[in-house]
Amino acid sequence: MPTYAFYNRVSRLFRDHPSFSRLLVLVSVSGGSLVAYADASPTNGVPSIASKANVDEKKKKVVVLGTGWAGTSFLKNFKDPSYEVQVISPRNYFAFTPLLPSVTCGTVEARSIVEPIRNIVRKKRVDIRFNEAECYKIDAENKKLYCRSNENNNLNGKKEFVVDYDYLVISVGAQVNTFNTPGVVENCHFLKEVEDAQRIRRTVIDCFERASLPTLDEEDRKKILHFAIVGGGPTGVEFAAELHDFVNEDLVKLYPGLQDFVRITLLEAGDHILNMFDKRITAFAEEKFRRDGIDVKTGSMVIKVTDKEISTKEMKNGEISSMPYGMTVWSTGIGTRPIIKDFMTQIGQANRRALATDEWLRVEGCDNVYALGDCATINQRRVMEDISAIFIKADKDNSGTLTVKEFKEVIDDICERYPQVELYLKNKQMHDIVDLLKGSKGDVAKESIALDIEEFKSALSQVDSQMKNLPATAQVAAQQGAYLAHCFNRMEECESNPEGPLRFRGSGRHRFRPFRYKHLGQFAPLGGEQTAAQLPGDWVSIGHSSQWLWYSVYASKQVSWRTRALVVTDWTRRFVFGRDSSRI
Amino acid sequence: MPTYAFYNRVSRLFRDHPSFSRLLVLVSVSGGSLVAYADASPTNGVPSIASKANVDEKKKKVVVLGTGWAGTSFLKNFKDPSYEVQVISPRNYFAFTPLLPSVTCGTVEARSIVEPIRNIVRKKRVDIRFNEAECYKIDAENKKLYCRSNENNNLNGKKEFVVDYDYLVISVGAQVNTFNTPGVVENCHFLKEVEDAQRIRRTVIDCFERASLPTLDEEDRKKILHFAIVGGGPTGVEFAAELHDFVNEDLVKLYPGLQDFVRITLLEAGDHILNMFDKRITAFAEEKFRRDGIDVKTGSMVIKVTDKEISTKEMKNGEISSMPYGMTVWSTGIGTRPIIKDFMTQIGQANRRALATDEWLRVEGCDNVYALGDCATINQRRVMEDISAIFIKADKDNSGTLTVKEFKEVIDDICERYPQVELYLKNKQMHDIVDLLKGSKGDVAKESIALDIEEFKSALSQVDSQMKNLPATAQVAAQQGAYLAHCFNRMEECESNPEGPLRFRGSGRHRFRPFRYKHLGQFAPLGGEQTAAQLPGDWVSIGHSSQWLWYSVYASKQVSWRTRALVVTDWTRRFVFGRDSSRI
Repeated sequence: MPTYAFYNRVSRLFRDHPSFSRLLVLVSVSGGSLVAYADASPTNGVPSIASKANVDEKKKKVVVLGTGWAGTSFLKNFKDPSYEVQVISPRNYFAFTPLLPSVTCGTVEARSIVEPIRNIVRKKRVDIRFNEAECYKIDAENKKLYCRSNENNNLNGKKEFVVDYDYLVISVGAQVNTFNTPGVVENCHFLKEVEDAQRIRRTVIDCFERASLPTLDEEDRKKILHFAIVGGGPTGVEFAAELHDFVNEDLVKLYPGLQDFVRITLLEAGDHILNMFDKRITAFAEEKFRRDGIDVKTGSMVIKVTDKEISTKEMKNGEISSMPYGMTVWSTGIGTRPIIKDFMTQIGQANRRALATDEWLRVEGCDNVYALGDCATINQRRVMEDISAIFIKADKDNSGTLTVKEFKEVIDDICERYPQVELYLKNKQMHDIVDLLKGSKGDVAKESIALDIEEFKSALSQVDSQMKNLPATAQVAAQQGAYLAHCFNRMEECESNPEGPLRFRGSGRHRFRPFRYKHLGQFAPLGGEQTAAQLPGDWVSIGHSSQWLWYSVYASKQVSWRTRALVVTDWTRRFVFGRDSSRI
Repeated sequence: MPTYAFYNRVSRLFRDHPSFSRLLVLVSVSGGSLVAYADASPTNGVPSIASKANVDEKKKKVVVLGTGWAGTSFLKNFKDPSYEVQVISPRNYFAFTPLLPSVTCGTVEARSIVEPIRNIVRKKRVDIRFNEAECYKIDAENKKLYCRSNENNNLNGKKEFVVDYDYLVISVGAQVNTFNTPGVVENCHFLKEVEDAQRIRRTVIDCFERASLPTLDEEDRKKILHFAIVGGGPTGVEFAAELHDFVNEDLVKLYPGLQDFVRITLLEAGDHILNMFDKRITAFAEEKFRRDGIDVKTGSMVIKVTDKEISTKEMKNGEISSMPYGMTVWSTGIGTRPIIKDFMTQIGQANRRALATDEWLRVEGCDNVYALGDCATINQRRVMEDISAIFIKADKDNSGTLTVKEFKEVIDDICERYPQVELYLKNKQMHDIVDLLKGSKGDVAKESIALDIEEFKSALSQVDSQMKNLPATAQVAAQQGAYLAHCFNRMEECESNPEGPLRFRGSGRHRFRPFRYKHLGQFAPLGGEQTAAQLPGDWVSIGHSSQWLWYSVYASKQVSWRTRALVVTDWTRRFVFGRDSSRI
């Protein structure tokens, strides 16, 4: 059956080489050579156990904890075959989390936003192994990780194991922060994991089915169909919008008597929702939600959740009130995972929210341990801490004063090492670093400026105020993962030719440039095919056109051609047939 | 934004009128009138609560229990607006169960084979309401049903309710039959519901992830990757084939070291697998599985399952042996649901496997109660029970003998009322009923045959041996549902013009023709894009061509355009990208 054989070949090929660029080349090749190519590298880069043993002794071992944005981005960009990589994560897949709110209402299917991590790494020419397990303790002193398999069944106590490492990349993310509000863990839904989104979807349908029972009166129906969302950040807002669309576009047709009983309440302790966005976006969102009938309660803090009611306190007057609910989704921010808490205590970073790293993502106080994503924050070094060292380094002739010429020679290194300086200049609308120095000297000709150490200190005294922590977003995590992978890829090269800025407190240069976050913009989908987009340079776009931008960006950012195809298919399906409301 | 408005309209339209035939008409209509049409009947056939109250008193109420093949087929075909229909089922969707084995390995997604029951009925011009609840007790005497909502949460004890009915349609299906084998419920997976299939999919991935843990030795890996399937029927066989394909086409690439440890065992107590199929199919399947390395153990009965081992007894020599396993799937046949057991006791049908109905699907011993699908069996009336009545009715001139002419006048009614007569003739290769009568009279000219009652009895004495119970398949259930709906649709019409056969034990005619099952063939997918098909007329087809037949039949049998599109997309996706192995 030659037709079938060809079908079989093509099918195998497609699966082995899903990347589109390859595909373009391959389709022009004849059948015979196609098979030869496909067979030539069947376990590409994943050597069998036997062949590995010989090489293992020489290779340094990098262990990556977690397969979220940071970990996956690291793995995708990691290229140096002289390392052995072991990935440990309780989830054997990467999830495209920005689409989680869409999963809650079936706009996109859960499986369309996940990609097995083994699939992501299997075509790389690096020895990467994966274990589905959770690391529950890091012993940085002995370079050991204590891990535990998720599954208990049939393992005869062999579910725990210890992993050694030479380099450790911690990218375990964060967990939901309940601010110790009583009853939240027991009664609220979260929206961090794929399973959470699936559970929310089932619960929404449950609420509608329960409200359709013949025994209930109007009051009961209203209670059951009251959906409360705690937290007016992008996730909470997007979920509220998705839910509103789901109810009004799809459920209203299937549950005709129930529309009037549905109420969606968005509770936010701050003064406005979406407060990390531009004010125009906040205003538009609040106005749109008001028109849509979504009840936005700002300045209202949740203080307790029982199985039937949610209690809030008005920030203005301290008034406490309660309201019954059918489902509550809690999305108020992120907290620290136990393993990170434990590790921070171990290395003397107790009482922090996240692991402190330097600008090269190295955990402070540890060797060869890196932390990325939501479980870490970069401790940007202050200029004022190093001000004397900078002055000495810059004052090449040791005259005790700094001229503009001398200063200009080190300014690039200063800006690279202390990005707050550049930010400060930009914010103060100074075109040149000289403007900053001039400020402390008064009206003097540029060339003749010369500052002593005290004047230099006073000129730079305000720059540290510009330091900001990076937001806990997928974008930051992904950029950190890619950055760190590039560092590993060029470790040897940069060892001999360091490319980083001057070491002000030491000699020579830093091996690598410090990590710099490049903000590419942020979306806030508001439902009804409208999205608010805040793009770099304070460019704000709201409406249907941004929705299409959102579609294109989210489609292009997918981790694989498979998920890209599935997500686009899901959108099309929703457009044609609506969202499914089967309770599975 | 006119473009958007149009997009919105079209999108809404597509969703409101997904049927393709309408679509063809609608796309040629201008935008404005489209909207008018869409708005004209927004809650088409589903009156609001207020308007319903007036009509309720007059309408007779049909209650349907269950939304499986029988119930859904009944609802789809039900057209008479003079009834009020209430559907009660713990699942708010219909599932296309023949594709469940495909869901276990991700060839098709769970959501692609389900359709909300509310969506199926909402476009009908009949008042159909749905309640997601389980009926736990039928009180046929008082025509009451006791129901309970699945969900406990927030209902303040209002989760139980009672429903009255005028007509009751029982189509609750069956449950898994464990034959009281110890340990089965605790340790085995079943494959009856969508959730079962999803659980199996997760467990398969779990087994592979567990087997990848670094602490295990070869023996452990072999144990964990041993998949046992109990029952060599179509479901078990198809699952074994799917699993084999999943492992060899997809998982082998992601878990490169593990292929050699995988073992699939199919256990069957009988002598052959697929024993309801033609022998050629059985032989082909056994040979294909042998080549594929699937271990088929026939004549091997499972007597116990513990959390680690499965114990079997050889039917031949009574030898008992045990083997460790990683996952066991139990699919050995169907048992009775508790509600049916209870109801059978109530109406004096205790100790049966399923509810006995007459040939019109009416439950014996009850008024206005019908039972269809796997929870019922048709008690075909024996010819020998009615033989005297038949004789008297046929002997029009009361001569005490039956001539060929007299017999020919009632033969159609006999064959319609007692289909075994027709079957008997066919099996004995008799062309005519006269051949049957001739047999008992010896070599006599056709016209002069005349039988007395004893001779008549002896002529027909063997025909009842042809009676067979219908198989418990989706096909039977769907045909029964459609049949019963047509009866309801034409209740009044047939009341005045009965279309059924003569009442041999009474006067006049039966109102309806009795239910007749029309076997359209059966498939057994065997993996590797090969399927065995047994079509009517003992036509057997095995191989790749039947696989394409299978694809077309299963695509065309989908309950909605949505699921049809999704299933075909899923097949395409699998073909291009393979099956997903994320553990969600």
